[in-house]
Amino acid sequence: MELELQGGLRLAIWKRKDIAFDTGIEPTDPCATEFTIGHNVTCREEVDQVMEQAEKAGATIIKKAHDTFWGGYSGYFQDPDGHLWEIVWNPQFEIEE
Amino acid sequence: MELELQGGLRLAIWKRKDIAFDTGIEPTDPCATEFTIGHNVTCREEVDQVMEQAEKAGATIIKKAHDTFWGGYSGYFQDPDGHLWEIVWNPQFEIEE
Repeated sequence: MELELQGGLRLAIWKRKDIAFDTGIEPTDPCATEFTIGHNVTCREEVDQVMEQAEKAGATIIKKAHDTFWGGYSGYFQDPDGHLWEIVWNPQFEIEE
Repeated sequence: MELELQGGLRLAIWKRKDIAFDTGIEPTDPCATEFTIGHNVTCREEVDQVMEQAEKAGATIIKKAHDTFWGGYSGYFQDPDGHLWEIVWNPQFEIEE
């Protein structure tokens, strides 16, 4: 599956075993701490909305939305493939629509 | 470390143990098959150039640049943190400069 994002960026979803096959690297057990996908939103409420939407869609909430030590608001979930997503509102981060 | 990319995208580099700490997930051994970063370039020669540049900078070549079954040309390397990068020329892929 491939998604066209902004600025020429594409997100493609591959099976782990296909990455192993294509690269010739031994497949290993899934591990969640290799990367996180950060999704920055425009306000606190949107963090809550996206977290709720993800949970309803089958995600596992790893860390509920909370105030962060750096003045933001964020939460983590794992998608059904075990990938970590962070939904973040950063008041210092300007988002161009 | 954080890099500003195109279209509001940022690439941030974290230590795996910091991802584990921040999410509360048990850290595991590194594993390379969780994701690849694909870097699409505009011609075959550029694949060779980037692969050479990466190798000189300390990357490990995993799969030398080669013609792919789908009509492109690509190679894989692992950066010093073990992350997989694919350098790709896809003749069907239009890249906006």
